Amino acid sequence: MSVRVGVLGATGAVGQRLIQLLEPHPDFEIAALTASESSAGRTYRDAAEWRVDSPIPGDVADVTVGATDPESVPDDVDLLFSSLPSNVGERVEPAFAEAGHVVSSNSSNARLADDVPLVIPEVNHGHLDLIEVQRDERGWDGALVKNPNCSTITMVPTLAALDRFGLEKVTVSTLQAVSGAGYSGVTSTEIIDNVLPHIGGEEEKLETESRKLLGEFDGAEVEWHGMDVAASCNRVPTLDGHLENVWTETEESVAANEAEDALRETPGLDLHSSPERLIRVFEDPNRPQPRLDRNIDGGQGIAVGPVQETTDGLQYDCLAHNTIRGAAGASVLNGELLLQEGWV
Amino acid sequence: MSVRVGVLGATGAVGQRLIQLLEPHPDFEIAALTASESSAGRTYRDAAEWRVDSPIPGDVADVTVGATDPESVPDDVDLLFSSLPSNVGERVEPAFAEAGHVVSSNSSNARLADDVPLVIPEVNHGHLDLIEVQRDERGWDGALVKNPNCSTITMVPTLAALDRFGLEKVTVSTLQAVSGAGYSGVTSTEIIDNVLPHIGGEEEKLETESRKLLGEFDGAEVEWHGMDVAASCNRVPTLDGHLENVWTETEESVAANEAEDALRETPGLDLHSSPERLIRVFEDPNRPQPRLDRNIDGGQGIAVGPVQETTDGLQYDCLAHNTIRGAAGASVLNGELLLQEGWV
Amino acid sequence: MSVRVGVLGATGAVGQRLIQLLEPHPDFEIAALTASESSAGRTYRDAAEWRVDSPIPGDVADVTVGATDPESVPDDVDLLFSSLPSNVGERVEPAFAEAGHVVSSNSSNARLADDVPLVIPEVNHGHLDLIEVQRDERGWDGALVKNPNCSTITMVPTLAALDRFGLEKVTVSTLQAVSGAGYSGVTSTEIIDNVLPHIGGEEEKLETESRKLLGEFDGAEVEWHGMDVAASCNRVPTLDGHLENVWTETEESVAANEAEDALRETPGLDLHSSPERLIRVFEDPNRPQPRLDRNIDGGQGIAVGPVQETTDGLQYDCLAHNTIRGAAGASVLNGELLLQEGWV
Amino acid sequence: MSVRVGVLGATGAVGQRLIQLLEPHPDFEIAALTASESSAGRTYRDAAEWRVDSPIPGDVADVTVGATDPESVPDDVDLLFSSLPSNVGERVEPAFAEAGHVVSSNSSNARLADDVPLVIPEVNHGHLDLIEVQRDERGWDGALVKNPNCSTITMVPTLAALDRFGLEKVTVSTLQAVSGAGYSGVTSTEIIDNVLPHIGGEEEKLETESRKLLGEFDGAEVEWHGMDVAASCNRVPTLDGHLENVWTETEESVAANEAEDALRETPGLDLHSSPERLIRVFEDPNRPQPRLDRNIDGGQGIAVGPVQETTDGLQYDCLAHNTIRGAAGASVLNGELLLQEGWV
Repeated sequence: MSVRVGVLGATGAVGQRLIQLLEPHPDFEIAALTASESSAGRTYRDAAEWRVDSPIPGDVADVTVGATDPESVPDDVDLLFSSLPSNVGERVEPAFAEAGHVVSSNSSNARLADDVPLVIPEVNHGHLDLIEVQRDERGWDGALVKNPNCSTITMVPTLAALDRFGLEKVTVSTLQAVSGAGYSGVTSTEIIDNVLPHIGGEEEKLETESRKLLGEFDGAEVEWHGMDVAASCNRVPTLDGHLENVWTETEESVAANEAEDALRETPGLDLHSSPERLIRVFEDPNRPQPRLDRNIDGGQGIAVGPVQETTDGLQYDCLAHNTIRGAAGASVLNGELLLQEGWV
Repeated sequence: MSVRVGVLGATGAVGQRLIQLLEPHPDFEIAALTASESSAGRTYRDAAEWRVDSPIPGDVADVTVGATDPESVPDDVDLLFSSLPSNVGERVEPAFAEAGHVVSSNSSNARLADDVPLVIPEVNHGHLDLIEVQRDERGWDGALVKNPNCSTITMVPTLAALDRFGLEKVTVSTLQAVSGAGYSGVTSTEIIDNVLPHIGGEEEKLETESRKLLGEFDGAEVEWHGMDVAASCNRVPTLDGHLENVWTETEESVAANEAEDALRETPGLDLHSSPERLIRVFEDPNRPQPRLDRNIDGGQGIAVGPVQETTDGLQYDCLAHNTIRGAAGASVLNGELLLQEGWV
Repeated sequence: MSVRVGVLGATGAVGQRLIQLLEPHPDFEIAALTASESSAGRTYRDAAEWRVDSPIPGDVADVTVGATDPESVPDDVDLLFSSLPSNVGERVEPAFAEAGHVVSSNSSNARLADDVPLVIPEVNHGHLDLIEVQRDERGWDGALVKNPNCSTITMVPTLAALDRFGLEKVTVSTLQAVSGAGYSGVTSTEIIDNVLPHIGGEEEKLETESRKLLGEFDGAEVEWHGMDVAASCNRVPTLDGHLENVWTETEESVAANEAEDALRETPGLDLHSSPERLIRVFEDPNRPQPRLDRNIDGGQGIAVGPVQETTDGLQYDCLAHNTIRGAAGASVLNGELLLQEGWV
Repeated sequence: MSVRVGVLGATGAVGQRLIQLLEPHPDFEIAALTASESSAGRTYRDAAEWRVDSPIPGDVADVTVGATDPESVPDDVDLLFSSLPSNVGERVEPAFAEAGHVVSSNSSNARLADDVPLVIPEVNHGHLDLIEVQRDERGWDGALVKNPNCSTITMVPTLAALDRFGLEKVTVSTLQAVSGAGYSGVTSTEIIDNVLPHIGGEEEKLETESRKLLGEFDGAEVEWHGMDVAASCNRVPTLDGHLENVWTETEESVAANEAEDALRETPGLDLHSSPERLIRVFEDPNRPQPRLDRNIDGGQGIAVGPVQETTDGLQYDCLAHNTIRGAAGASVLNGELLLQEGWV
C-alpha cells in the first residue's frame, strides 16, 4: 500500500528531482502537485519547464498543478515534500502542518528553530521525536521536518563518523556545483573560466546546521554540538556534486587508518533510498571527483578520499550529489524515515 | 643599457610567457633561447607552438634556438631565465651557474637546498645574499636563484603581511587553474564539469616553501619559519588564476580591519614589474574572482577578499595570476632584483 | 572639440561595453546616461552592476543616471548610443529622434524598416543617406540609425568582399558565445557540457539583415540583395566571440586564393575604431579561434580562416568579437561615421 | 550460448567503452584483451587507467592482457572488436583476419578499401556480403568489417531516410565533443572558453564515408552514392555527443513533415543494441542538445530536431553519442549483425 504524497513547489529544479525520485517509489504515490499562482490549473507537462535528463514520468505529466495552499491539497495526502523558496516556505509550510499534513522540507527556513527536527536519517534519526515537542507547542496535527543545506549534508555524515574521537574543530572549504543555486542561480557569463569565492549565507548554514545535527536530543530539546566550525564556500564550473576539503581536530589523536575505518563502517538504514554503506572511502588521492563520483549509490552515497594526518588532526575530501543526497533525495529519505517510524 | 639575457626552455608554456614579458623590457634584451634537442637549430617561430594570445615579438621569432647546454649560450649573456622541466633543470642549471651565468629559475628543483635563495622580491629580497654562501660552497662564478611554486606565491605575500602578529598556523585550500599544469597537463576530458581534488606534490611545496620564504636569514643560513602549514590542493576548470581560501592563527589576536590594513600597506619594490602596492584588498565578498582579477597590475598583483574573524583567527581568499606572478613573471622579478642588487 | 554623447540603457551588458569604449574616445564625451526607472536618480556606480574586466571610468562612476525619456536628456547631447531592449527601444528611440537627437542604436527593433539605415561603416556607409528619406517621411530633426545583429556583423564583411564575384547563395552555421544573450541570457546549468541548437529569431536576422546590408541604395530606397541566405544558429560554451562556418556560391567561379585576396584587401575606414584592414585571413586551418582571435584590432577586426574550394563554391570560417564589433563597438563606429559625414 | 570475443586495444578510451558495453551482453563473452607491449602480461585492472563512470566489470578486471598479435589470441575467439590506433590497426587487423578471426573494427584505416564492408546495420547491412569478395581476393578465413567515423555515423542514418527523395547535395557543420579525440586528444588549455574550427581529416571522412555507406552493392562492388557532401568540422567544449547542422537538397521537393515522417519511420533492427526506432524527431526547436539527448536509447539512438524548409531543400540538426553509437557501440552492433547473419 503506497502512501499518497504531494510535492510543494513541483516545477522548480528540486521539485523536478523530487518527481524523478518519487516516480516510481515503492512507498509513495504522487497525488498532488503545487506551484505558484501562474502555474496553478495547468497540467504539470505545461507548467514545468522540465530539465531533468530523463522524461517526465508518464502519470505525472497530466496531473493538474494546484496552488500552494492547504485548500488545494486533499486531506488524505498525508506526506508533503517541500522544495519551496525559503520566503514562501516560511509562510505556507506551517499552514500545511496545521492542516494536518506532515511536511518533509528542503526549504531553508526554520531549520534552526528549536522545535523543528533537522534530520539526516543515517546521522540523527532520533531527533525526529522532536515532533512531539513541536505538536505540543504549536497544536498541530501535522508536522514540519527539515533536511539541511546541500553543503552541510555532504560533510556531516563524515563528522558523525569521526565524532567518536571527540570533534573539537572543523575547517572546511567547499567547491560547489552550479545546480545548487537552482536552474538560473548562476549565469554562464559569471562562471565560465571562473570561480565565485562567496555564496551568500552558505557559510553560516554549514557552521550552524552541522552543530545542530550532531547535537544531543534529550527528549525536550537539542543541545548543539560544541565543536567550532569555520567554512569558506566557493562556486565552481561543475554541474552537480559538491566537493569539500575538510580538516578536523579531535580530543583523541586519531590515525588515518582508524579514521578511514570509522568512515567505512558507517551503516546505511533500512530505507529504500539509503545505501548499504553510507560512506565510500577511496584509496586513490585523485578521488573523489564530482563527475565521476556524484552518482555513487544512485546519488545517495557520500564519497571520501584518503584521510591524511596533519600536525594536529586530519584532512580529507568528501563529495555528494547536491541535488539528490543534498536536496531532493534528502527530503525523500526523511519521508521514508517518517513513514518507517510511524509519523505518517 | 640593456642586459643581455637568455631563456632556457623557451618553447614551453612558461617559456612563452617569459618571452612575452621580456619583449620589450626596459632592462633586458633577449640574446639567447634554448630548448630540447629536437628544437635546436630551428628559428623560434618554427620551434615554438606559440599559444600566447599576443603575436610572437618580432625580433624573437627569427632567433635560432640553441640546445640547452652552456656551450650554446654566449658568455656575455649574463642572466638566464629558466623554465625547464624539473628533472632537466636539476641537471643543467648548475652547469650554467658554474659556467658563470646567473640563473633565475622557475624550475621546481633545488628550491629547498640550503644554499639556494628562494625569493619573492617584495617578501624576502634579503635572502638573495645567500648567493655568497652558494658561491663559496660551490665555487661558482654564476649563481642559481629560485622563485617558489605558483600556489605558494599566491599566498605568501599575504602571510608576510600578517606575520607581524606572529603566525602560528596556516590552513589553505587551493582552487588552481589548468594552465598551472602546463599546456597539456590537464586534458579536457578530465576537467570539463569536474574538479580534480589532488595535485601531486603541490601540498608539500606549499607547506615547505612558505616556511623557507618567511624564514630568517642570518648571513649564513635560512632558519625556516616555525608556523604550521596544512594545504589541500584542487584543480578547477579555469584557465588562469589560482584562488586560495586561507585560515590563519596568530600569537596576537588580530581584528579584521587591522589585518586588512596590514595587507593593503604592503609596498611594492622599485622594480619595473613590481606593483606600487603589492596587495589589493576588496570590500566585496564576491571578489577576488579568477577571470575578473587575475590581470591586476599586469598579472603581478595579489588580490585579496575581505578578511573575516573566526573563533581563533582569520579567514580570507587570495588570488594571483599563476603564470605571471606565479611563474614567468616571478622569474623576471627576481632577474630585476638581481640586476638592481648588483649580482648581474 | 568632443561631441557630447549619451548612452540609453547604460547599465546593461552592451551599455557597459559602450561606456568602456567611449571613455576615453577622441571624438566623444559622455554627457548623459539613462536606464530604467528603478535606476534613475542614482549614480552610475550604484545603478550599474559593473561586470566589465576593467574598472568603471572615473568620470562616469559619479554621473547621475536619468530615466530613458527625452526630458531626461539635454538638447545639446547630439548623439545617443542605444542598447535598449528591443521592446523599449521600439517605443522610445523614435521619441528621441523626434526630439532632435541622432540615435545610433544596437537595439534590434526597426532594423528592416524601409527608411532606417542599417549600416556597417566599412560595408555600406552610403546607406546612411537614407536619413534624408527618414527625415522627410517622419518630420524628424534627429535620426535613427541601426547596426545589425552580432551574428550578421561577423559574416557580412566577408560577403561584401566576395560579392564582386556575384553572390547567389550563402549557407551559414554559427557557434555563438554566451555573452550575445546578455548577462543573464544563458544559465550555467543549460550550457556547461552542452550546446543549444537554436537561438530564437537569430536565423531570420541573419537571413534578412544580410540582404539589406548588401542591397543597392538608389537615393530613395534600398533594394535588398537577391542572394539566398540559409542560417542555422547554435549557442556554445564560450564567453565572447562568434565563430561562423560559411559556404558561398557565386555567379563567377572563384579560386580560393582569389577569394583570400579579396578578403585581405578590404580596407578599413578613416574612423577611430575602424582597423586599417578590416579582415585578417589566417593560413592556419586551426584558426580563427574565439579565445585567441576575438580581440584582433581591439575587438573590431574580422578574422577569417583559409578559404577552401568546394564542388560549387567556397567554404571558410569567420569570427568577430560579438559585444565589440558585433554590438557596442558597432554602434560606436556608426557614431563616428555619423560625425564624419556631418549628420552630427 | 555466448560467442567468445576479444577486444584489440582494450585499454584506450574506445576500448574501455567496448568493455562497458560487452559486459554483460546476451550474445558475447569477453575471452581475450590485447593492448600495447607495455601492458601485455598485466591484469586489465593494472594495465588500464579506467575512466568510464561505472566500475570495471568484475570478471574483466583480472583478465591478463595480451600483446596485440594473433599469437596472443586463442583460435576459438571468433570475433574481435578493434579500437586500435589507425596505424596499428592497418598493420595487425589483416593479420588477425588471415588467422581466421572476424574483426569488427572502429579503427579508421581501410574504411574506403574496395573489399572492406563499411556498415551501419540499420543503414546498409547488405554491404556485409562484401566479405565474400574480401575472402576471395585475400584468401582469408576471417574477415575485416568497419564502422564509420563518429561524425559520419551521426548524420548518415538521417540521410538514408531522406534518400528516397533523391539526395543530391549535403552541407554539414559539426559541433563535436572532446571525447571524440580520445582521452588526451584535446587539452583543457585549448578548449575552455573556446572552439577549435578544424579537426584534421574529419571533413574528408564525412564526405567520403557517407557516399560509400549510401552506395549500391551489386554483389561485387559498392558503387558510391553520387551526392555531393561538403563538411566543416568544429570541436566544442562538450564531453560527449556530436551535434550536426545539416542542409540537404533532393531531386524531389520535400515538405518538412514528409521528411520528419521518413525520419521517424526508420526502423531499428532485431539486434540487442539497436533501438526500436532508430531516429527520434523532436518538435522542440531547442532540441537535440548534447547533454540532454546523447543517451537516448542507451546512447544508440539518433536525435533530430524539427525539419525546416529552405529555398531549395531542408535543414535540420542531428545528434548521437559519439563514443557509443559513434564508436564502441557501432562496432558492437556490427558484431551483433555478423553473428545474426552467420559470419561468426
